[in-house]
Amino acid sequence: MRLTPDASGVFPIAPTPFNPDGSVDWTSADRLFEFYHDIGSDGITVLGIMGEAPKLEPEESVGLVKRAVAKMGGKPIIVGVSAPGFAAMRSLARQAMDLGAGGVMIAPPPSLRTDDQITGYYAQAVEAIGTDIPFVIQDYPLTLSVVMTPAVIRKIVMDNPSCVMLKHEDWPGLEKISALRKFQAEGSLRPISIVTGNGGLFLDFEMERGADGANTGYAFPELLIDVVRLQKAGQRDAAHDIFDVHLPLMRYEQQQGVGLAVRKYTLAKRGILSHDAQRKPGSALSAAAKAEVDYLLARIAKHDRRAKI
Amino acid sequence: MRLTPDASGVFPIAPTPFNPDGSVDWTSADRLFEFYHDIGSDGITVLGIMGEAPKLEPEESVGLVKRAVAKMGGKPIIVGVSAPGFAAMRSLARQAMDLGAGGVMIAPPPSLRTDDQITGYYAQAVEAIGTDIPFVIQDYPLTLSVVMTPAVIRKIVMDNPSCVMLKHEDWPGLEKISALRKFQAEGSLRPISIVTGNGGLFLDFEMERGADGANTGYAFPELLIDVVRLQKAGQRDAAHDIFDVHLPLMRYEQQQGVGLAVRKYTLAKRGILSHDAQRKPGSALSAAAKAEVDYLLARIAKHDRRAKI
Amino acid sequence: MRLTPDASGVFPIAPTPFNPDGSVDWTSADRLFEFYHDIGSDGITVLGIMGEAPKLEPEESVGLVKRAVAKMGGKPIIVGVSAPGFAAMRSLARQAMDLGAGGVMIAPPPSLRTDDQITGYYAQAVEAIGTDIPFVIQDYPLTLSVVMTPAVIRKIVMDNPSCVMLKHEDWPGLEKISALRKFQAEGSLRPISIVTGNGGLFLDFEMERGADGANTGYAFPELLIDVVRLQKAGQRDAAHDIFDVHLPLMRYEQQQGVGLAVRKYTLAKRGILSHDAQRKPGSALSAAAKAEVDYLLARIAKHDRRAKI
Amino acid sequence: MRLTPDASGVFPIAPTPFNPDGSVDWTSADRLFEFYHDIGSDGITVLGIMGEAPKLEPEESVGLVKRAVAKMGGKPIIVGVSAPGFAAMRSLARQAMDLGAGGVMIAPPPSLRTDDQITGYYAQAVEAIGTDIPFVIQDYPLTLSVVMTPAVIRKIVMDNPSCVMLKHEDWPGLEKISALRKFQAEGSLRPISIVTGNGGLFLDFEMERGADGANTGYAFPELLIDVVRLQKAGQRDAAHDIFDVHLPLMRYEQQQGVGLAVRKYTLAKRGILSHDAQRKPGSALSAAAKAEVDYLLARIAKHDRRAKI
Repeated sequence: MRLTPDASGVFPIAPTPFNPDGSVDWTSADRLFEFYHDIGSDGITVLGIMGEAPKLEPEESVGLVKRAVAKMGGKPIIVGVSAPGFAAMRSLARQAMDLGAGGVMIAPPPSLRTDDQITGYYAQAVEAIGTDIPFVIQDYPLTLSVVMTPAVIRKIVMDNPSCVMLKHEDWPGLEKISALRKFQAEGSLRPISIVTGNGGLFLDFEMERGADGANTGYAFPELLIDVVRLQKAGQRDAAHDIFDVHLPLMRYEQQQGVGLAVRKYTLAKRGILSHDAQRKPGSALSAAAKAEVDYLLARIAKHDRRAKI
Repeated sequence: MRLTPDASGVFPIAPTPFNPDGSVDWTSADRLFEFYHDIGSDGITVLGIMGEAPKLEPEESVGLVKRAVAKMGGKPIIVGVSAPGFAAMRSLARQAMDLGAGGVMIAPPPSLRTDDQITGYYAQAVEAIGTDIPFVIQDYPLTLSVVMTPAVIRKIVMDNPSCVMLKHEDWPGLEKISALRKFQAEGSLRPISIVTGNGGLFLDFEMERGADGANTGYAFPELLIDVVRLQKAGQRDAAHDIFDVHLPLMRYEQQQGVGLAVRKYTLAKRGILSHDAQRKPGSALSAAAKAEVDYLLARIAKHDRRAKI
Repeated sequence: MRLTPDASGVFPIAPTPFNPDGSVDWTSADRLFEFYHDIGSDGITVLGIMGEAPKLEPEESVGLVKRAVAKMGGKPIIVGVSAPGFAAMRSLARQAMDLGAGGVMIAPPPSLRTDDQITGYYAQAVEAIGTDIPFVIQDYPLTLSVVMTPAVIRKIVMDNPSCVMLKHEDWPGLEKISALRKFQAEGSLRPISIVTGNGGLFLDFEMERGADGANTGYAFPELLIDVVRLQKAGQRDAAHDIFDVHLPLMRYEQQQGVGLAVRKYTLAKRGILSHDAQRKPGSALSAAAKAEVDYLLARIAKHDRRAKI
Repeated sequence: MRLTPDASGVFPIAPTPFNPDGSVDWTSADRLFEFYHDIGSDGITVLGIMGEAPKLEPEESVGLVKRAVAKMGGKPIIVGVSAPGFAAMRSLARQAMDLGAGGVMIAPPPSLRTDDQITGYYAQAVEAIGTDIPFVIQDYPLTLSVVMTPAVIRKIVMDNPSCVMLKHEDWPGLEKISALRKFQAEGSLRPISIVTGNGGLFLDFEMERGADGANTGYAFPELLIDVVRLQKAGQRDAAHDIFDVHLPLMRYEQQQGVGLAVRKYTLAKRGILSHDAQRKPGSALSAAAKAEVDYLLARIAKHDRRAKI
């Protein structure tokens, strides 16, 4: 299904499963996508930063898109196509859409500085991939070191009709959501889906500021689904209650550099991945770190039995 | 009291109180230092990054040191002396020590890249301020963009006998504490105090990895004191229990750029500061953000009556 | 004399002379300012990046301004007042103007990213120093990592009537001069003085693109004066001829990090400075580098006898 | 021919020729490689930063390697294989060697900071591509923002026997060449080829410091060959004389961002490329800039008839 500006809900960022020898673990990939589908995800993103996308061969990237499409029952698959050059970006974007993907996600290259450079980059990217492919802006200054003001995001959205979603991952970013929704209320910005990242660390309040959902990879996406559902239902206290139960682990998983190792370790412990391996260069958890995650899981399990693993 | 390598406990990072017109609010400064003393802090740091140090006139900086010394009952006062030039660093460091400070904190300038540049910088800084002043290394890559390996920190410590403390603020940083303590166990590093920053966001586990305490400015330093005390007493679960109660607010306060506004807002709400003003250029909380902090405080108050404000 | 938007000609960036023991060499400072005056400079800048400004004590900075004013015969003295905080910036700016300076130069702090952050910073700086002090924008992305588009510069100029000059030091930057002069021709930008830096490395063409002069510290400011004079007189080939004679040394002096050592070595060799010392932390020339500078000077001397030293 | 540690001479960095419609201009590619061969180059580098490598499709990259091998008469072809992931790096490196390339060039990713991160990266890269492929370290801090000390380079060389060459592109970098040659004289570094970049801007002195040649793309590689030959023959003054004739244009071509446009414009004007087009996103010269290049060429032509075009 194609991604549209009224997309809403939880779109987990899928890690790429590997075998200990570094090959793609296709069995786990299938199981992971089925899991995302069965818990009620509204779509998923593959080949994101946390999907170890730059480490993959082109045919492996295509393989992941294929399997995601096959397993997600028609829900939109967003494909990360960020690349140092437009040729590779176009090639992957068009292949992915031909395979049934719903849209693509584009991050700005770290060298961009001025407002004009950023809006110019997105104009060129859209020209490269074609105006018929729905795309997501990835706004992630902490990792990408590109800072987009609300006005810059508005310009990208208004200049490019194929822009359907913002992956909001600014930090801090609550005021940015409010600013964009205010633009929309004033009529200077057309409606667009805003889904948030940062491991879900601010999802509780992001929903209250006007986000439509989450687009991040916390190892318990069920929790993200709970928070989004409860906030949409106006059950604020209940949303914060369940959120707070998981916050100690979300915080632990959100550590730059080792976060993916925490996430894969937890998903493996849950039986969803067969291994917690990363393709090189990757990080691994020390014995102390694993014991810390185990301890956090045990504490969560007192309040959320899904963490009893 | 002079700072020594066996320093241990909680050393709050003091914000600098301002009046709404931008002048220093000396009354609040006195009250703040008394508060830190009365709750049982083991010392404090003034003129840190969160102390808005670069915005102060030299005589204001000196004034803050004087009052901190006067109010803290002999506990060590650490003075941030980081400066773009060694003349200003030396001048403030020597004045502060003459006034009774216990030591100084030195952050590396953001331009440093290689291991040799970093160790060379600290050698020059020590030469500039004099080898008789105890100093603290500030290791804060997220904000300073200088990355120090454990081996680099060890070299600074071993080359400079006046180095007594590491303000550990790497992120993620748990493995770094373990690596340094391992160096110490192996005998390649002399004992040094390690206190942690990052708003306390990982204090629960940092204590378990071998930290001696906290050196950060969370608006409830009592909580930091609780966690440090409980962990030292081996009461792990109790430490995590109280930590988790505060984590939603600690996380909210740890947002880069607006964190200080959250901290001052809370301290003002607690009656410790008369105003939550920052000297220009500063950030202020929106009405929505204030309401979010209020909501978090109310939730904390259900489990910790000190937050009932 | 106050700096005005019709300022034109060569404004050397003055190095700060030091004695080998690190103290300011006031005798050399006087001699240097006299030299700049006698060769026909149209003003000078003190306390710039190449003036080792952050290494100076406040009273030393003030001393340099005093002597520059005393020796430059009424020509405008521009004082670098860039500082991590507005308190220090205001303090130095107002003192300098009271002592007879003509204006101040303000560089943006390296943390600025978006267009709004940059224009906002200059608005706050002007509010801090007062709207009555003529100021110069320093646009130097290579060192400061802040990128200002022509439109951003225009906004700063148009929003702040006290902005009188742009120190243009973008690299590459020829098209930026053309863009700004086009804005001026179209009427969207009021007239402003544009003087160029980068060690003079593109002065030949910068004058042809519409620059008013140079604001840089090449060790033969007479050459800069020649090029500016010849270009203003329409003697293009003659300007390039003399420029090309010096280009091998200008290029050598423009090396980041060691450039100031080359400059001071040459000025000392010319007898204008008594020593080539920098205050710590500084760089020094190796014997090989000194021999290379000597060789370049000897080659220049074949065509320009002023280099016979 | 395989690249060896005693490689010496001039290895031009080849631009990738494009047609105005953005397709690869294979005819010009053949002509360019023939030109490099005929003037006496000692090898070439394809797919470097100035070869617009990230903009190419994999099959285009392979095509360029094939044609370079075919036209260069057995001289070593160095292939830039820098990539965000090791899978792509390995894939291109092994294909290139199978096609007859002589070695590969690897630049460090911009995120690396500490000495250990840099040496660790090269260890992983060598593990990925295999220890049987000769490789070149690209040391280019200005663009890559990774700073390698001489000791770090030594460690990479000594740890990895397949390292045969350093592309030295630090700026400033003369002392680095001296330091490495001193390591070699002392016996702590095995002999390695050092060739220099930066558009040739310091080639005159780099040869005197111990460089073996040039590995850069100035539009008159004949000049680089002249300088290298004369310096090797001990004709210092003659080397500087011809170097100085070209320096105004070399300086103009060395402008970050527009340099490639200058280079392609000149090569097209010389009849070696059919077009000066870059694949998007690229830069183009303004009419003013073209006139400036024409003017510089005319001035060079007075002393070097090869520039009469």
